[in-house]
Parts: sequence; structure tokens; C-alpha cells
Amino acid sequence: MHFATYRTSTGEKVGVVQADAVFALSDLVSDAPEDMIGVIKAGAELLAKVKAALPRQGVGIPLASVELLPPVPRPGKVLCLGLNYALHAKEGGNPIPDYPSLFIRLQSTLVAPNAPIIRPTVSEELDYECELTIVIGKTAHDVPEEQALDYVFGYTIMNDVSVRDFQRKTTQWTAGKNFDGTGPLGPVIATADSLPPGARGLRISTRLNGTTMQDSDTSDMIFSVARTVSLLSQITTLEPGDVIATGTPSGVGYARKPPVWMKPGDVVEVEVEGIGVLRNPVAEAS
Amino acid sequence: MHFATYRTSTGEKVGVVQADAVFALSDLVSDAPEDMIGVIKAGAELLAKVKAALPRQGVGIPLASVELLPPVPRPGKVLCLGLNYALHAKEGGNPIPDYPSLFIRLQSTLVAPNAPIIRPTVSEELDYECELTIVIGKTAHDVPEEQALDYVFGYTIMNDVSVRDFQRKTTQWTAGKNFDGTGPLGPVIATADSLPPGARGLRISTRLNGTTMQDSDTSDMIFSVARTVSLLSQITTLEPGDVIATGTPSGVGYARKPPVWMKPGDVVEVEVEGIGVLRNPVAEAS
Repeated sequence: MHFATYRTSTGEKVGVVQADAVFALSDLVSDAPEDMIGVIKAGAELLAKVKAALPRQGVGIPLASVELLPPVPRPGKVLCLGLNYALHAKEGGNPIPDYPSLFIRLQSTLVAPNAPIIRPTVSEELDYECELTIVIGKTAHDVPEEQALDYVFGYTIMNDVSVRDFQRKTTQWTAGKNFDGTGPLGPVIATADSLPPGARGLRISTRLNGTTMQDSDTSDMIFSVARTVSLLSQITTLEPGDVIATGTPSGVGYARKPPVWMKPGDVVEVEVEGIGVLRNPVAEAS
Repeated sequence: MHFATYRTSTGEKVGVVQADAVFALSDLVSDAPEDMIGVIKAGAELLAKVKAALPRQGVGIPLASVELLPPVPRPGKVLCLGLNYALHAKEGGNPIPDYPSLFIRLQSTLVAPNAPIIRPTVSEELDYECELTIVIGKTAHDVPEEQALDYVFGYTIMNDVSVRDFQRKTTQWTAGKNFDGTGPLGPVIATADSLPPGARGLRISTRLNGTTMQDSDTSDMIFSVARTVSLLSQITTLEPGDVIATGTPSGVGYARKPPVWMKPGDVVEVEVEGIGVLRNPVAEAS
């Protein structure tokens, strides 16, 4: 099942996406949670009810007519891994790591599907990064790898847009990863049961103005979803709705010769098989 | 003026601290904001009213009898600078930087004054770091250095407790800075007008079990408060209640020979002149 958060005239709503239509969760089940974190917390029992209620005739809204928001609009944590695909580590001149490189994004970086990515005034080095993104389902603290997938609600996509010169001004990547308006998230959350275990074997790709720039497979991740959740849960207690972007494959703009930077007017699409396409234009900061 | 957040039987309260007493803000002014971010947003007009209402007889609570919380219990952003004192950069073998090294802490790391710092089960390399911490007063985006101090509400202290082996497992420090229960913040916010401009020239020190471990002066910061606010506001729009820890001076445990690690039963005090002493015991993770 695919869940989305979208804006209506009366506020945010959670919906289920089927083909090209959105079904408001509140039309499908009674006592529907008000937001995605509520849906995630309600867990398997709610999912079973929703599944039983679908498909429903006559209550769907055309997907193209709704304003999607990041599926978890206000995640408690936005954790990100770097260097998690061997070829991408190599293209940046980095060795294959034995522990994940962790950084954090501020909630304020998040961008809705179809909304513009903002190129800051202080840099032109704006780069795309397609990333399979874990959505945590249950409170997870010190979880062994063998049980870690039980704590995953589903998967979405992040375009971990990076301002490369700021990412490399110091050893710490955080500055280049936290410009306002540089973190598209969405378009939907695919529940874990709708994808292979650990979301392995999914094609992951990026198109910039229609040209394929990244094209890989989630099986190439160095740290699997289960290992990532397990290791991060040793550091921080993961909570429902927390998201973990799992790193990007090779093909990013800065490693190309000459480098390719995104510029205002461009359109970038990041896609993970079985989840969807997250599409965003690029705009100049105002 | 010194503001604190503390817990009462009916919930969190904001108070003004004078000498050894806390005066509930709601006893001093009518329509007092309910939390610290509300106080910060109310700004100068509220501060003038509170100042006029002090000192008040008979309504103070002994400071020792209240349960203090982090003065901003839920900051929207917890930004942190590394390597901002020349001697500390040198003790870690790092060159003097020309741009601040930024990392982010999760809200979930925060620890109240007097509450235990948690030593994780996976590491014994627990280290202290006393840091002058900026509390943002007004929304700040792309602010020039000359105006940046206008956006500062006041200052508090963070003990930027670090799990050194995790900080150094990869090039990214984030893992070692984000263990649950490793970010004491407080004890109070000293308003900007109660300290020298940019909080310069303040003694900053750490005592571990009574022994002085760090002892420096905020004038030794490489990136001043104004420059820090200005530079970070180019990346992320700073909001009222956001906090920025400005890095620690030399004397940390890992640079000593042999290294000094904090262990359960220890008591660590970090102090910044004019703000106060932030005292925490260390406990084993349960």
C-alpha cells in the first residue's frame, strides 16, 4: 500500500494512493488517525482495516489534482547516510567504509513533491542524490540486526540535494546538506509489506531534465536497511515517523567531468522501483 | 536577567532566576507566554515588563527545590560548531579553520540540569565539552555580521558530551554527538543585555569531580557569535529558540595523556561566567 500526505482546504490529510487516485483515509476507515505519524503508530491493525476497505469506488481524488506534502511532514529525526554505495564512495575518492557515515538534516530542509528545490544565492554547486529512505514504524532502541526490519513501517525517497562547495568547506558535510529547501521527500510511503524484505533489489535512478544520471540497484548498498536500523538504534532511540536516507549510488553531478550542477528551470526526478517518482523543479532563492 | 524552564506538578513553567530563587513568570506579568519560545518571541516589550516587576517579595521559590529543564526544552534546531578555539583545534591535531565546522544534535540528546548524562553501553569514551550557547531571538535569514547580534535573545551553556570512538569511526562526527542523554543544556538563559556584546571575554571552564579540566575565555573563539549567526543564517533560516553551541576550548579528556573518560558516578560541571554552572552526574545506560 502507498500512503501520502496532502493538503486540502481544511488542512493536511493522509490518503491511500491507488493507480492515479488518492483515497482519503478518513473515507475508508472510522477513527482514522489525523496525520502520518498517527497512521504509523496505529500499525498493522489499521493497515488491515484499510486494505479491507480498498478498492472503493467513487471516493478517489485524481492524484494530479492534490497538493502532495512530504509523506511525513514533520519527522522527529531526519538521519542520513553517506558513502553507502561502493561506486559512489569510489567516485568521491573515498575508501569502502566499515561503519556508516551519519549526518543529520534539519526538518526545515524538507521539500514537498513537485515543489521547487531552492538554489541558494551563495553557491551554484547544487547536486542531486537519489536515496531509498526508511520510515521507522516503532520505537527502536538497541535493536539486533535480525529483528531490525520489524521496526520499519515502509519506504519513501529523498533527493538528498547537496551544496557541494559548502559540504566540503570543512570535514563535516552538515552545512552543505542543510540549506533551506534542499530536501525533497516523497512522493509516498510504500509499506514494508509491499516491497521485498529490506527493500533489496530495487532499481534506483535519477533523471535530470529527462537524462538518466544515476541508475543502480538497492542491493548495492554497503549497509543494508536492517544493519542501518540496528546500528543507528545503538546511538539514538528511533521513533515512529523518523526517516533514514540510506545514501546514494554513483552518478552524482560533482563527480562528472565537467561537473553537472542543477540550475533554476531544471527538473529533477528521483525514482525507486515500487515506491514512485519524486519530481521537483529547481528555482532561484528569492 | 536569567530565565529558566522548570517542571511543576501542573506542567512546565518559565521563571526568572534572581539569586537563589525562581519567580514564576506568570506571577510577575499578566498574559505571560506559556513556554520559553513564547517568551523569546515576545521579546523586548515583555523583558521590560518583567524587569519592572522585579524584585518581588514573597513569590520566589528556592532554586534548589525546583526541577530545572533545559531552558528551551524543545529547540527547533540544535546547531553545534566544532574546532572554534585555536588551542582545542590544535590538541585534536586540526589546523585553524577558515569556516566553522558544523554538526547537528537531535533534540533527543538533550539533558536537563542536574539530570544524569548517560554513558552508552557500547563505549567507555565519554568526554565533556563546555560550550557557550547562543539562543536565537528572531527569525534570521542571510543576516550580515554587523546586525547579527540583534537576532540573539541570550546565552546558555551546553555540555557537548561526546562519545569519542563513535565520533571518529568515520569522518563525520555526528554519531558520536548524538547518543541519547548526552546533551546537557542550561541551567538558565542569560539575556543578551546582561552580558558583554557577543558574550566576549567570559571565563569558560569545566570541572570533573571538582578538578578543573577546561579553563579559557570566550574571547578565544575563532568564529565570534556575530560571525557564527551570520554564516549559519546563510544556510538555514534561524528561528526563535534555536540554539547554537559555539565549540569548546582546550582541555578535553581525549587529548590528555592518558585520556580521561567520564564514568558512572562522576559529576561534571561546566560554567560560563555570567550565565551559571551546569552540573550533571554521569550514569550507566539502563
